Amino acid sequence: MKLQSLEQLYEKALSEIKGEKGVVTINIGGIPKTSKSNDIIGNCVQEWIPQWLEDNGLILETNISSQKFPDFTAHINNIKYDMEVKCWNHANAPAFDIANFDSFYREIYNSPNKLYAKYLIFAYLPIRHGFKIENIFLKNLWVITSNSKNYPIGLQVKQKRPYAIRPFAFHKYPDKSFKDVQEFIDAIYETRKIFILDEMIEPVLWHKKSDRNIEIKIMTICYEFI
Amino acid sequence: MKLQSLEQLYEKALSEIKGEKGVVTINIGGIPKTSKSNDIIGNCVQEWIPQWLEDNGLILETNISSQKFPDFTAHINNIKYDMEVKCWNHANAPAFDIANFDSFYREIYNSPNKLYAKYLIFAYLPIRHGFKIENIFLKNLWVITSNSKNYPIGLQVKQKRPYAIRPFAFHKYPDKSFKDVQEFIDAIYETRKIFILDEMIEPVLWHKKSDRNIEIKIMTICYEFI
Repeated sequence: MKLQSLEQLYEKALSEIKGEKGVVTINIGGIPKTSKSNDIIGNCVQEWIPQWLEDNGLILETNISSQKFPDFTAHINNIKYDMEVKCWNHANAPAFDIANFDSFYREIYNSPNKLYAKYLIFAYLPIRHGFKIENIFLKNLWVITSNSKNYPIGLQVKQKRPYAIRPFAFHKYPDKSFKDVQEFIDAIYETRKIFILDEMIEPVLWHKKSDRNIEIKIMTICYEFI
Repeated sequence: MKLQSLEQLYEKALSEIKGEKGVVTINIGGIPKTSKSNDIIGNCVQEWIPQWLEDNGLILETNISSQKFPDFTAHINNIKYDMEVKCWNHANAPAFDIANFDSFYREIYNSPNKLYAKYLIFAYLPIRHGFKIENIFLKNLWVITSNSKNYPIGLQVKQKRPYAIRPFAFHKYPDKSFKDVQEFIDAIYETRKIFILDEMIEPVLWHKKSDRNIEIKIMTICYEFI
C-alpha cells in the first residue's frame, strides 16, 4: 500500500517500529562489539529511518551531507515535505540540536522553509544489548520548543554566545509549547535582542521580513490544497 | 603476552587490524542496514579500539564522556598514557577535530598534559559493504599538526572565530610538521594573537606560563625513567 499522507507514514512507524528492539554493531576483522554511545545510536537511527521508508515505497531524496537541512525530503501525493529525524535517550530530557541559532536566524530571513519542517522523533531506551524504541513523535517545530528558564527559547549558550536551539520536554508538557509559528518567531526575535551582533541582520528588520515570509508561505500552502 | 610498551601496542594494532575489513550495522526490529556515514564509522572505531585493547589484556580507564579528553588512559608498566583515538576516511585529507581552540588554549595554561597525549589514528577506506583499515599511526600532537595556508596552525574558523584545531596531511608530508612541542606552542600563541579575545588569558602571559609548564613536564618525565 502506497503511503498517501504524512499521517499514514507516522502510523506505519508507530505500528511497525514502536516497541521494537535495536542494536548497533561494529565488526572489525571478525570481532563484533555493540555500541553503547548515545551519539552513535542517534546517528544510526537517523540513517536507518530514510532507508526503511524507501523500502516501504516512499519516494524521498536524502541529503548527501548529514550536517545539512533537511535530513530528507518526502514526496507524498505530489507534495514535498522537508523531514528532520531526531533521536534522544528517553531516560533524559530531549536535548538534540534543532539548529545553530545564528545560521537559523539568517536562513529564516531568506526563506521560511525551515519553520515548516516535519520532525520525526524517536525516543529510545538503552537495554542490555542495544536499545528499545520507546516512543515516536511527528511534530511541527513550534510544538517541540518553548521558552526556557533563562531565555525566550530553549538555547545552548557557549562562551556567552547563542549556539544551538534545543527542544523542551514536549513529551511531558505538551501544553507548554509555543502555540503557533508566530510565537516561535517572536521568541527568536526576543533571543536575538539579548545577543546583538554587529554583523547580523538588525532584529526589527528581521522580524518584519520573517512575518511577511510566513504570510506568503501560508498563502502558498493554501493554494496547494485548492 | 602482556603489552610492555606503547610501541608493542602499536605493533599489535598494525599486525592484527591493518588491512582488516569492518562494518557498522544498525538493526531495528530485525531489519539490518549498513552505515555509510563517515561520522558513524569514525565514532564506532573510537568505541571499538579501547574494548579490543582491553580484550588483549591492556589495563585502561575509558572516559565516560565521549566528548572529553582523553578517550582513554592506558596503564603500561606503571606509566599512564593519555590516549586519543582518531579516524578519517583515507580518500580525503585528515580533518578530524583535535580540540576546540579556545578550550585548548585555556587548558594548556593550567596543565600541559594535553600536549603529550598519544594519538592512535586509523585511516579507513569505504568499500562496498563497510570499510577497510588502510593504515594505522601512533603519533605525538606536534607531528600531526603544521602551519596552514591561512593561519599559524591548521584551524577551522567559524564566523570569524577560531573553532577546531585540525591536523594536516601528516601521512603524506611528514617532514612538514612542527619539529617539537615548543614549535606547536609558538603556533598556538601566534594564532591567539590573530584572534584576540578580551575575556581570554593575555597571549604573552599565556606563552610564558605554557613554556614553564612544558619545562616542568619534561623534568617529570625524565624522573620517571631514572
